[in-house]
Amino acid sequence: MQRGIKIATIGGGSSYTPELIEGFIKRFDELPVREIWLVDIEEGKEKLHIVGNLAKRMVKKANLPIEIHLTLNREEALKNADFVTTQFRVGQLEAREKDEKIPLKYQTIGQETNGPGGLFKGLRTIPVILDICKDMERLCPDAWLINFTNPSGMVTEAVLRYSKIKKVVGLCNGPYGIQRGIADILGVDMKEIYVEFTGLNHMIFAKTIYLHGKDVTEEVLEKMTAPGTDTVSLKNIQDLGWEPEFLRTLNMVPIGYLRYYYQTSKMLAEQLLAAEKEGTRAQVVQKVERELFELYKNDNLDIKPKQLEQRGGAFYSEAACNLISSIYNDKRDIQTVNTKNNGAILDIDRDSAVEVNCVITKHGPIPLVTGELPLEIKGLVQQIKTFEQMAAKAAVTGDYNTALVAMTINPLVSSDTEAKQMLDELLEAHKAYLPQFFKTEGVNV
Amino acid sequence: MQRGIKIATIGGGSSYTPELIEGFIKRFDELPVREIWLVDIEEGKEKLHIVGNLAKRMVKKANLPIEIHLTLNREEALKNADFVTTQFRVGQLEAREKDEKIPLKYQTIGQETNGPGGLFKGLRTIPVILDICKDMERLCPDAWLINFTNPSGMVTEAVLRYSKIKKVVGLCNGPYGIQRGIADILGVDMKEIYVEFTGLNHMIFAKTIYLHGKDVTEEVLEKMTAPGTDTVSLKNIQDLGWEPEFLRTLNMVPIGYLRYYYQTSKMLAEQLLAAEKEGTRAQVVQKVERELFELYKNDNLDIKPKQLEQRGGAFYSEAACNLISSIYNDKRDIQTVNTKNNGAILDIDRDSAVEVNCVITKHGPIPLVTGELPLEIKGLVQQIKTFEQMAAKAAVTGDYNTALVAMTINPLVSSDTEAKQMLDELLEAHKAYLPQFFKTEGVNV
Amino acid sequence: MQRGIKIATIGGGSSYTPELIEGFIKRFDELPVREIWLVDIEEGKEKLHIVGNLAKRMVKKANLPIEIHLTLNREEALKNADFVTTQFRVGQLEAREKDEKIPLKYQTIGQETNGPGGLFKGLRTIPVILDICKDMERLCPDAWLINFTNPSGMVTEAVLRYSKIKKVVGLCNGPYGIQRGIADILGVDMKEIYVEFTGLNHMIFAKTIYLHGKDVTEEVLEKMTAPGTDTVSLKNIQDLGWEPEFLRTLNMVPIGYLRYYYQTSKMLAEQLLAAEKEGTRAQVVQKVERELFELYKNDNLDIKPKQLEQRGGAFYSEAACNLISSIYNDKRDIQTVNTKNNGAILDIDRDSAVEVNCVITKHGPIPLVTGELPLEIKGLVQQIKTFEQMAAKAAVTGDYNTALVAMTINPLVSSDTEAKQMLDELLEAHKAYLPQFFKTEGVNV
Amino acid sequence: MQRGIKIATIGGGSSYTPELIEGFIKRFDELPVREIWLVDIEEGKEKLHIVGNLAKRMVKKANLPIEIHLTLNREEALKNADFVTTQFRVGQLEAREKDEKIPLKYQTIGQETNGPGGLFKGLRTIPVILDICKDMERLCPDAWLINFTNPSGMVTEAVLRYSKIKKVVGLCNGPYGIQRGIADILGVDMKEIYVEFTGLNHMIFAKTIYLHGKDVTEEVLEKMTAPGTDTVSLKNIQDLGWEPEFLRTLNMVPIGYLRYYYQTSKMLAEQLLAAEKEGTRAQVVQKVERELFELYKNDNLDIKPKQLEQRGGAFYSEAACNLISSIYNDKRDIQTVNTKNNGAILDIDRDSAVEVNCVITKHGPIPLVTGELPLEIKGLVQQIKTFEQMAAKAAVTGDYNTALVAMTINPLVSSDTEAKQMLDELLEAHKAYLPQFFKTEGVNV
Repeated sequence: MQRGIKIATIGGGSSYTPELIEGFIKRFDELPVREIWLVDIEEGKEKLHIVGNLAKRMVKKANLPIEIHLTLNREEALKNADFVTTQFRVGQLEAREKDEKIPLKYQTIGQETNGPGGLFKGLRTIPVILDICKDMERLCPDAWLINFTNPSGMVTEAVLRYSKIKKVVGLCNGPYGIQRGIADILGVDMKEIYVEFTGLNHMIFAKTIYLHGKDVTEEVLEKMTAPGTDTVSLKNIQDLGWEPEFLRTLNMVPIGYLRYYYQTSKMLAEQLLAAEKEGTRAQVVQKVERELFELYKNDNLDIKPKQLEQRGGAFYSEAACNLISSIYNDKRDIQTVNTKNNGAILDIDRDSAVEVNCVITKHGPIPLVTGELPLEIKGLVQQIKTFEQMAAKAAVTGDYNTALVAMTINPLVSSDTEAKQMLDELLEAHKAYLPQFFKTEGVNV
Repeated sequence: MQRGIKIATIGGGSSYTPELIEGFIKRFDELPVREIWLVDIEEGKEKLHIVGNLAKRMVKKANLPIEIHLTLNREEALKNADFVTTQFRVGQLEAREKDEKIPLKYQTIGQETNGPGGLFKGLRTIPVILDICKDMERLCPDAWLINFTNPSGMVTEAVLRYSKIKKVVGLCNGPYGIQRGIADILGVDMKEIYVEFTGLNHMIFAKTIYLHGKDVTEEVLEKMTAPGTDTVSLKNIQDLGWEPEFLRTLNMVPIGYLRYYYQTSKMLAEQLLAAEKEGTRAQVVQKVERELFELYKNDNLDIKPKQLEQRGGAFYSEAACNLISSIYNDKRDIQTVNTKNNGAILDIDRDSAVEVNCVITKHGPIPLVTGELPLEIKGLVQQIKTFEQMAAKAAVTGDYNTALVAMTINPLVSSDTEAKQMLDELLEAHKAYLPQFFKTEGVNV
Repeated sequence: MQRGIKIATIGGGSSYTPELIEGFIKRFDELPVREIWLVDIEEGKEKLHIVGNLAKRMVKKANLPIEIHLTLNREEALKNADFVTTQFRVGQLEAREKDEKIPLKYQTIGQETNGPGGLFKGLRTIPVILDICKDMERLCPDAWLINFTNPSGMVTEAVLRYSKIKKVVGLCNGPYGIQRGIADILGVDMKEIYVEFTGLNHMIFAKTIYLHGKDVTEEVLEKMTAPGTDTVSLKNIQDLGWEPEFLRTLNMVPIGYLRYYYQTSKMLAEQLLAAEKEGTRAQVVQKVERELFELYKNDNLDIKPKQLEQRGGAFYSEAACNLISSIYNDKRDIQTVNTKNNGAILDIDRDSAVEVNCVITKHGPIPLVTGELPLEIKGLVQQIKTFEQMAAKAAVTGDYNTALVAMTINPLVSSDTEAKQMLDELLEAHKAYLPQFFKTEGVNV
Repeated sequence: MQRGIKIATIGGGSSYTPELIEGFIKRFDELPVREIWLVDIEEGKEKLHIVGNLAKRMVKKANLPIEIHLTLNREEALKNADFVTTQFRVGQLEAREKDEKIPLKYQTIGQETNGPGGLFKGLRTIPVILDICKDMERLCPDAWLINFTNPSGMVTEAVLRYSKIKKVVGLCNGPYGIQRGIADILGVDMKEIYVEFTGLNHMIFAKTIYLHGKDVTEEVLEKMTAPGTDTVSLKNIQDLGWEPEFLRTLNMVPIGYLRYYYQTSKMLAEQLLAAEKEGTRAQVVQKVERELFELYKNDNLDIKPKQLEQRGGAFYSEAACNLISSIYNDKRDIQTVNTKNNGAILDIDRDSAVEVNCVITKHGPIPLVTGELPLEIKGLVQQIKTFEQMAAKAAVTGDYNTALVAMTINPLVSSDTEAKQMLDELLEAHKAYLPQFFKTEGVNV
C-alpha cells in the first residue's frame, strides 16, 4: 500500500456510489485512497459513466489526489486491490420487482432480503460473489472483501463455507442506524452509549443498551413504545407499530426487518395495498433512481446530492468507510459486522456468519462474546440461520430439491405446495441469472 | 411391589380407559398389576363410574386378581403407587372446542397441541401436573409418572424444569404408529426394522429407517410418495398429501402433525371448511364420546368395544403398557419417549425434553444419541422448543407478558397484534382454569 | 452371508486364537460361522500353523462345519469377509519389551497402552490398520472391522478420522471384567445389574451402578474399599490398592489402568522392582507364550487349555463373540465398546472415539447418552483424548514434531527434554516398524 | 463519583503498594482518584504504617489532592468505594514458605499458585475473598472488585460461582509482560503488535502474534528459540530453556509458569537445589521485603524505590491502573484479564473464569472470541480448569474429601497416597487459616 490504497468497487455504477466517494473524501487524512476502480457490466455501462463522472468531479472539487477509474474489466480492477467492495444487483431492479411481485400473487411477503424474494436474490448473487472470490485469490490475495450486496448475511455465509477467501466482512447499515436512533431517543451522543447486538443480518437485536456503563434498555423501550414516539427504524420499512407489551417484554430493540416475522399479516396487507397504489418497493426505487441519475448527469454537480439520502441507504458510507479505515489503521474500535461466529453466539453453529459487535483490527474483525440468545428470539434466529445455510447450498449446487426445501422451511412461506409453485415461477422468471439450475436445457425442473 | 403393582390413573373417567385396562389384562403374566385406581374430579364423576364399571367387568371376564378402585380422592390413589398415569383434560372437551374455534376467528390454525390452542392447553394443564408432582413427592416418591396428557412435550418440559420429580416419562402413540406404518409399507414385521427418531413430541421425524441393518429410508419415501399410496399418518389428521419432491428431499418421515407447519395454509383452509360443515375436531369427538359412553353403560359389555379404536388414540394401550412393563421388568428394549435430552440431540438444550429412542431400564429411559438435527428440520425444531420453554414459563408464572411473547413467537401466529387479541380472548374464555393469570381480580389483563 | 459367516482374523497366529475359536464353537447355534481365515505374516508363520492346527482340532472335536483356513495372504482372507477381527502386534513381544524398558531408563512408566510405550505402539499399529481399512474398502466393503489391537482407543480414533471405513468397533475386555467384578462384589448375577460406563479405552469409569433399578454405587465402593476386599481389576495390573477416601469420593469404579495416572509414583516403583527381579511384563508374557505354544503343539489337545486364562485376556472371547453375534442377529442389547462419540459424552469432541454403553444393532453400535463427565475425572479424560488425537496425527503423518508434542503432553512424561530423549531412542529402536518417520534415509530425526 | 474516585486496597500494607500509588499519581489527569484506603489486619499494622506513610509522602511530592487513609477497619474502607483492589496474603510469607517446603518433602513442586501449594493458597484465600464480596454487596454494591491476589484464576472462579458480586475482574501482570517481551524480540513498540491470548491464569498462551496485521508467530518463536536469545519470562521463574522443537511445534508462546507442567522434573530438581542453597522463593522474598521496608521507613524517600522492581511484580501497576482507568473512562481498549468465559474459549465451560483478551468498557470486560483451544494445549488447560473448580468447591465447603480429590487430580501430584499425605500435613500446617476444615474440633480429618 506504499503508493496509497487501491479500492475496487464491484457494481460501481450504483446510485449509492457518491455516498462512498464522499466517505473516502472526508476520511482522506486517515485513509489515503489513491485509486478507486468502479467496475460494472455491459448493461450498467451508461450508469457507470454518469456516476463515475460525478465521482471525478467530487474528487476534483475536494482537490485530492484520488484517481477514479471506470471499467468493465473486473480483472483489471481487482489486480493488487487492497479492498474490494461489492454493491451490485444481479438482474438490476427489474429482478427485484419480480422478487417482490411474484410472492404477492401467492399471498406471501415479497421482499428482496427475506422470504422467497430473499432466497432468489441469494440464488442469483452467491455464484457471482464466489466467482469474484476466485478472481481475488489470483489477483489480490491479500485484499479484504467488504460485501454490501444483499442478502448480506446469506452471502457472507456462502463465502465462509464455499470460498477460500478468509478476509471477508459482510456489512449492513442497520446496526449503525439503530445505534443512532437509540442515541437520539436518549438525547445523547452515540459515543456515550454501548449497544450489545446479537443476531444475523436483517435479523439483529439491540440486546442490551448501556449509557455510561449503566443498563438503560428498559428505559429506551419505554420511550420507544410511549404514545407518539417514532421507533428506531430503517426508512424503507414502513412504521407499522409494535404491540408495546410485546416489545417491552422482549426487552430488546429489533431491527425493522423483524416486522416481516412478528407482524407478517400486517406487513403483507400493507404490501398488497402499496403494490396496487404505488407499486412495489422496486418500482418506487426505480423512479427515485431515474431522478437521481438525472441529477448526476448535471456537469455542475460536484458533491453528493441531498436527494440521495432518501434512497434508503442512510449511513451506508459511514458503515463502509469506517470499516475500511479501522482495518487499514488497526483502530481496534468496535463495529457491528457479519463475520464467522466462532462462539460469539453460543446457540449458532461456530462456522456460520453472524452479525455481532467486533473489534476491528488490521487482521480483521474479532467478535465479542454475547453468550446465549435470549429464549424469546432464539428459535427464530436459529431457524433463519438454517434457512440461510440451505439457501447457500442451493445457490452453489443449483439443486432444485435443495431450493425447494429452503423455500418450504422459510417461515414466511405458508405451505409446501405454495413453495413449489413460487419456486417454479421464480426460477422461470429469473432463468437468465440462474444458470446453475438450468445446466442441461429443460431437464432439471 | 411385593403384593403386586399399584397403578394410579389420573383422569380415569376418560373414554380411553378401556384401552389401558385391556393392555394390563393382556400383559398380566409379565406385569402383575394388583390395583388400578381410577381418579377423577367431581365433574367427571358420572363418566368415571360408567367406565370404571366396564373396567371391573373386563377384569372379571378375564378372571384376574386385579382390583379396580374408583375415587375422587387423588391422595388416596397416589399413596404408595408404583406408576402414575395421567390422561386428563382440564376443562374437558368444551375447553378444547374453544382452543380450536377461537384461533379460527383470527384465520389461525385451531388445534389442541399446536399454535394458540396448544399454548392454552399447556397453560391449563401444567399447573395441575406440577401439583400432582408435589403430591407424588409426598405420597409415592419412588413412583414413575407416565404422562399421556397433551401437549405431552411441553408438559414433560415443565416437569423437568419446575418439579423435583425425576421419574417422569412423556408418552405419545405417534412414533409407534409411524413404525407400524413403515413396516406395513415395507410389508415386514415391526421387529425387522429399526427406525431412528429425532425431534420433539408432535414434531418428530423418522430420520433413518433400517431393514435388517440396511438403510432403506429412500425406498420407504419413494413408496410413500408414489401415486395412490396411503402415507403414514395419525388418523385424526386428514390426509392432505405432501409435495412428493419435498418429502423425498427431506428424506425423513415426518409425523402427521408437521403438516400444521409445512402445509399451514392448506390445513387452515381445511379446518375452516370442516368447522362449518361438521364442527371442529372437539365437536366431532364429543359426539363419538357420547356414543362410546352409551356403549360402556351396557352391563353386558365386558371387553373393549371395537368402536373405541376409531376414537383416535390407536396404540395408546401399546405405548403405555409396553413402557410400564419395560420399566418394571428392566427389559432394556428400545422405545421412543419424551425425556431429558442430555446430548441425544446435539442442537437442543441438554436440559430440555426431546422425543427420541431410549433404552428402557428399571431406572428409567436412557436416550440413544442421534447427533445433530439435519439442517432441513433443525430450525423449526429449535423454534418450537423455545416456544415450549416460554409456554412452560408462562404457565408456571402466570405472567401475561411471557404468555404474549410465547404466543407471538409461535410460527402459526401471524402477527403480534393477532397474538395479543387471541391471547386476551382465550384468557377470558378459559378464565376458570387459569387462576395463575388472575391472581388479583381484574388487574393482570 | 447365505452360506454362513466368513471371519478374517488378522494376527491369527496369536496365542489368544483358541479363545476366539472356543467362542465361535459355543455360539454356533446363533452365529453360524462357516469360514475362519487366520492370517499372519511371514515372521509369524510357525505360530500360525501351531495355533491353526489346534483350531482345526477344536472344531473337529465339536463336530461343527466350520472351515479353518491358514494364510499369509491377507487379501485372500479379506475377500468377501463379513467380519474382520484384528489382534496383531507389530514387532511382536520384542517391540513391547522396548516400549516397556526404554521409558524405565528415564524414570518413566513403561507400558504398552499408556505413556511413551502406548504412543509407540500406536505409531507402529495405526498405519497397518489404515492399510487393512483400504483393503477392506476394496475386498469386503460391507464387513465390520472389530479391532482388538491395542491401544484400541487410539486405533479407533485413527480409523474414525483417517479412514473411509465407517463400520468399525474398538473392543476391550475391560468393561466386561469390571461388570463381572461388581456383580461378584454384590453377590448377584451380571444380568441383575446395570453399569453406566463413561470414558475412553483404558480410561473408563463405572460411573453409576444400578441393582434392580436402584443406585448402589456407594455400596459397591464401600465394599471395594473395605479392608481385606479384592478390588475389581484386570489381572495384569498388580493390586496396589487405592486410597479408600479417594475412591469413595470419586464414587466411581475406575479401570485398573487408571492407576498409572492416579498412582504414578507407586506404579513406577513397582515396575522398576519387577523389571529387576522378573523382567518387564513383555518378558513375563514371552515366557508364558512359549509354554502355551508348547501345549498347543500337542496333537492330542483339542480344547482351549486352561493355562490360556492366565495369559491376561480374560473375557476376550466373550467380548468379541458377543459383539459379533449381536451385530449379526440385530440383538439390540447393550455392550460397552469404542465408537464415535456423537454426543454420548458431552465434554468430548463429537467426532472422537469414546468407550461407552451402546445398543448393538445390525447397523452398528448406537451410544447411550452419559451427559457431562463428572468434574473429578473430566480433566484427565479430556487430556488423554487430545493426546490420542495428536498421537494418531503423528502416526499418519510421520511428523517428528507432532510426535514430540504428543510425547511431551502425555501426563506420564515428566519434561520436554525427557520427552525428546525418549522419542529419539524409541524411534531408533523401532525404526524397522516406523517407515513413515524415516521416509528419506537419515534426514528426519 | 462526583467528588473523585474512592479506592479501597485490601492488603494495603503490601510491599507492592508504592507501585500502585505511583500508577495512580501518573494517571491522575485521566483518573481523578481522591481517596485511597489502605486496609490491613492487626498482624500487618506495622507494615501498613510504613508503606502508608511512604504513600503519603509520594502523593505530597506529586502535589496531588489524593487522600491516603490507613485503617484496620475494612468496612470503613469499603463504604461507597468505587474500586476495591485486593493484594493480601492470608498467613503472610510464612504460609507461602510452607506451601513451598512441604511438597518438596514429597518430591513434588512447591509453589504458591500451582500444585499442592497453589491449592492451599486457594483454600486459605477464597473464604476471605467471598467474605469481602459479602461486605461489598452491602457497603459498595456498584464497586468493581479488582483481584490481584493469587491464585487469581482460582479466586475469580470462586467469586463467579459462589458470590453474588458480578463486577469482578481477576488480574495478572503476566500477559502484559509477555506482550512486552514479544515487542522487544521484534524490536517494535507494543502498540504495533496484536497478541491473541488464550488459556487460564498462569496457564496462558500467546496463540497468535500479529505485527501490522500480519501473523508473525513463527518468526517470534524462531527468534525465541535461537541460540543465545532470552525467552519471554516472568522474572521469578528461572530460565530453564525449552526444547526448541517443542516450542516451535507448539507455535505459541507459553507463560513461564507452564514450565511447571512441561518441564516438571527439571523444575523440581532446580527447586530442591535452590531450597538447599538459598531457601525457597518465600525465603528469598522475605529477605527482599525486609530490605524494602527498611528503605520505605526512610522519611526522605518520597518516590517508588528502584529496588521494588526486583521484587517480581513487574508491570503490576500498569496492569491494575490501566484496567481501572479503562473501566472508569469507558475506554473500550483491549486488555487481557480473568473473567467469565461465555464462549470465548469454546472448550471451556461457559461459566468458568478464563484469561483472554477483553474489551474494557464501563460496564466491564467483554471477552473476544478465541475459538477452540489448539489440540496441543487443550487437554492440559481443561484439566487445570477442572482442578480449579474442585479446589474452589473444597475451599467453600471445607470438605476434606473434595480437597483430597482436588489434590490427587492435580497433574503435579504423583499419586493418591502422596496426595493424602501432603493434604494432611498442609492442613495441619495451615490449620489457623482454614477454619472451614476444622469446624468441629478434631472430627473432620
